Amino acid sequence: MIQTTLVQLDNYGPWTVTPEPRAEMCLQALQARLYADLAEAVGHRNGYAFYTRGDNMISVTNGIGREAHAEIQSSLAVQYPVTTSMAIGTGATPKEAVDDASALMQSAGGAQSPNREMVVAGTSAPPSTDQHLSVAHFDVIDVTGRYTDRMGAFETYRTIERGYSSLMDHLYTAHGALSFFVGGDNVVALCPSLPQVAYREALEHVREATGVTLQVGVGTGATATEAGMAAKHGLERCRKETVRITMARD
Amino acid sequence: MIQTTLVQLDNYGPWTVTPEPRAEMCLQALQARLYADLAEAVGHRNGYAFYTRGDNMISVTNGIGREAHAEIQSSLAVQYPVTTSMAIGTGATPKEAVDDASALMQSAGGAQSPNREMVVAGTSAPPSTDQHLSVAHFDVIDVTGRYTDRMGAFETYRTIERGYSSLMDHLYTAHGALSFFVGGDNVVALCPSLPQVAYREALEHVREATGVTLQVGVGTGATATEAGMAAKHGLERCRKETVRITMARD
Amino acid sequence: MIQTTLVQLDNYGPWTVTPEPRAEMCLQALQARLYADLAEAVGHRNGYAFYTRGDNMISVTNGIGREAHAEIQSSLAVQYPVTTSMAIGTGATPKEAVDDASALMQSAGGAQSPNREMVVAGTSAPPSTDQHLSVAHFDVIDVTGRYTDRMGAFETYRTIERGYSSLMDHLYTAHGALSFFVGGDNVVALCPSLPQVAYREALEHVREATGVTLQVGVGTGATATEAGMAAKHGLERCRKETVRITMARD
Amino acid sequence: MIQTTLVQLDNYGPWTVTPEPRAEMCLQALQARLYADLAEAVGHRNGYAFYTRGDNMISVTNGIGREAHAEIQSSLAVQYPVTTSMAIGTGATPKEAVDDASALMQSAGGAQSPNREMVVAGTSAPPSTDQHLSVAHFDVIDVTGRYTDRMGAFETYRTIERGYSSLMDHLYTAHGALSFFVGGDNVVALCPSLPQVAYREALEHVREATGVTLQVGVGTGATATEAGMAAKHGLERCRKETVRITMARD
Repeated sequence: MIQTTLVQLDNYGPWTVTPEPRAEMCLQALQARLYADLAEAVGHRNGYAFYTRGDNMISVTNGIGREAHAEIQSSLAVQYPVTTSMAIGTGATPKEAVDDASALMQSAGGAQSPNREMVVAGTSAPPSTDQHLSVAHFDVIDVTGRYTDRMGAFETYRTIERGYSSLMDHLYTAHGALSFFVGGDNVVALCPSLPQVAYREALEHVREATGVTLQVGVGTGATATEAGMAAKHGLERCRKETVRITMARD
Repeated sequence: MIQTTLVQLDNYGPWTVTPEPRAEMCLQALQARLYADLAEAVGHRNGYAFYTRGDNMISVTNGIGREAHAEIQSSLAVQYPVTTSMAIGTGATPKEAVDDASALMQSAGGAQSPNREMVVAGTSAPPSTDQHLSVAHFDVIDVTGRYTDRMGAFETYRTIERGYSSLMDHLYTAHGALSFFVGGDNVVALCPSLPQVAYREALEHVREATGVTLQVGVGTGATATEAGMAAKHGLERCRKETVRITMARD
Repeated sequence: MIQTTLVQLDNYGPWTVTPEPRAEMCLQALQARLYADLAEAVGHRNGYAFYTRGDNMISVTNGIGREAHAEIQSSLAVQYPVTTSMAIGTGATPKEAVDDASALMQSAGGAQSPNREMVVAGTSAPPSTDQHLSVAHFDVIDVTGRYTDRMGAFETYRTIERGYSSLMDHLYTAHGALSFFVGGDNVVALCPSLPQVAYREALEHVREATGVTLQVGVGTGATATEAGMAAKHGLERCRKETVRITMARD
Repeated sequence: MIQTTLVQLDNYGPWTVTPEPRAEMCLQALQARLYADLAEAVGHRNGYAFYTRGDNMISVTNGIGREAHAEIQSSLAVQYPVTTSMAIGTGATPKEAVDDASALMQSAGGAQSPNREMVVAGTSAPPSTDQHLSVAHFDVIDVTGRYTDRMGAFETYRTIERGYSSLMDHLYTAHGALSFFVGGDNVVALCPSLPQVAYREALEHVREATGVTLQVGVGTGATATEAGMAAKHGLERCRKETVRITMARD
């Protein structure tokens, strides 16, 4: 059972232009810092949080209960001028879990509803030590030599963006996986349990569609941290052994 | 003359896996906070900084001299475990300015060179009060009603990502403009001076390619803040008057 | 059994002046943010951390084990240019616990030793649900009406500082309690179990020595958060019922 | 002419206990981060800001005009759940400047007035290149060897606190100077122009009253940064040359 949490800022859009549009760099700093605090608070509890749209952040929260969600929510409310609502969804695939969370959030009130404030919706999955989570950590092979140190910075960014879009689309459509760009040339995907051939097809798909050559480490675990750290070690093995795919239990 | 600054973390990739891969949420918090501080420091001086790849951040810095760059760099070095190098590039279009900055950065040393540390490369453009900067601020029409409050959160994110990719590609290829996703459903683009028809074509291109319907406010100014704030006011007029494009001097 | 943790920056003094003295406001921002992150990380685990000297921070950490200390330490190392060492001490009184922690830290290496880095010394007390912690939360009666809105801001600050010094000295000398100024007109003290008369004497002592009139809520608990929150509720009762001392179990 | 700014949180006390007392560590993190941002924003403009009481922060702001104050104020309002009011005061001595600022703040509304929000009161002094500011930077001689590495951490903290209180009192009463503890064993004082003998008396006073032996570097400048950096270099000379007092223009 996969558990995700949708964290949505309460009535944020209207706030950003009231009474006048606020300075863009201040808004960027606010969004980045609020996300950083969420990432640390979720990370301390062995989950993963992704920036996503900044005002809607998707987290993987297996092992984190309702009460801990409420504590994180209260803590953010003391630090920031905007509050958050959180919806905890579960499902057999990452897509199902986030769709469940989204429906619960929508039932609790609209993103621009002035009446919805600091809701915690949904029920957390019972804690389990099953290795039910798969995290895949991708990066671009030799990004520094091929792109960063050779091309214009925006050109490189576009290339990575294109690779990310293609990968995200493929993994979502084919497997219900959720992929997030996490900076540099890195993409972290929350996946259902997939065979190695599925990853081979994904790398192939991206290379054909965009020319970008990826490698990937895949890890499993009871929590996002456990699966994600195994994936990172897998990616290190890709780099050292010049293989394109490393599965946690190869 | 457009001035951009490429801010690149020094030898960051190796640091993230030394001696062991570091916890992903800690790295995300680091990247987000370092960016937030850069955004505020550049914003205080009337520039704009964008997250871009997190380890490579593109800024619009007209009016900000070399000395101020060095001050920002020193300030970041006191706050964070990684240092930055900065390259100031200029050009007739945004693309030319960022390519100039990129070449200067590459001459100063590679992104993973252990010998490059806290370089400030390049020369700032002489201060000017010309309205030489154009900033276009796009968003998705009724994103809350059509997507956020109706679809799954990842589905909505994918839709916006697709719209952003399409817009970024079009504006870059056709005009040498640099577009950045700034959270929510917002894209901020640094553009050369363009007629209204160019924006109409861009909106049309995105709608046909992805089904996403955008609106845009365009502002001009001597600094990014000035142009960007005019663009935000333009976008407010779009919302109120139900027009799709508002140019600063309509 | 009281458990405290001494968090000491590694070799910080020399770093602040290498190669040149660093800008004071950058150092202040660094110290404040590192403390804020420590406070949140300790707070998420039901402990209390105090700024103290900034480069030496005293925390109350009952219920927080060695592994959690190491996690907080690693997390700080990813965010900041300086690392921390932590020594966990225990004792029958707060004074004994902090002395134990201090001795362990000193055995691990000097504050300016270039060789000591990211030590975690000492052993955490076994978790317990005993109400062994007493936290007393003091503030100045009607500080706004008597001082803030009437006197010069530095004069008010001096008055509060004088009251704090007097209280800290008395509680430490008489009872081995540790008192910390936490902003505004608030002092939080970690105390051994004391009868109400001891608090009455403390308030009297401060009033006679400095003219400052305090009130206090005292709470007990198995963790700092539990005891501290009970103390805050006690202080609210002082305000509402115009009593000077409220003990958790009156 | 010395210019100081009093930055006061608007109606903060009531907010911290509404609807219930908020978690202390969250409040500590909020206060520390808000201060860190203020310190950076003021520092970028060559001023100094001190934590003081956290909800009342005293800044030295020579060279910073009303408009820049309003920009910093707006920027903080986007980042934090509480707003600030600012009063700019001037005077021949630091004490007079802060008293002027305090009176202006009080006229604008009480610290717990629900009606006062984001006031900027007072008028900035005309910019000047006169060396009218004196900053003295004190520390404790061999604090690590004598205290930190030898005594209990709270005992050391008490010793430094006692030295600070004594120094602050003396400099304020004798000269109208404002002294602030800035972490470690450091005190930064904003002073009127004083002869070396005044500093000698201050060190002597503290040593006799508390047994703490201080050294001091004194700098002058048109801005706090300039004077403060000269003071820091002076303190480095004290350390290297084993003298107790270094004046900028010895």
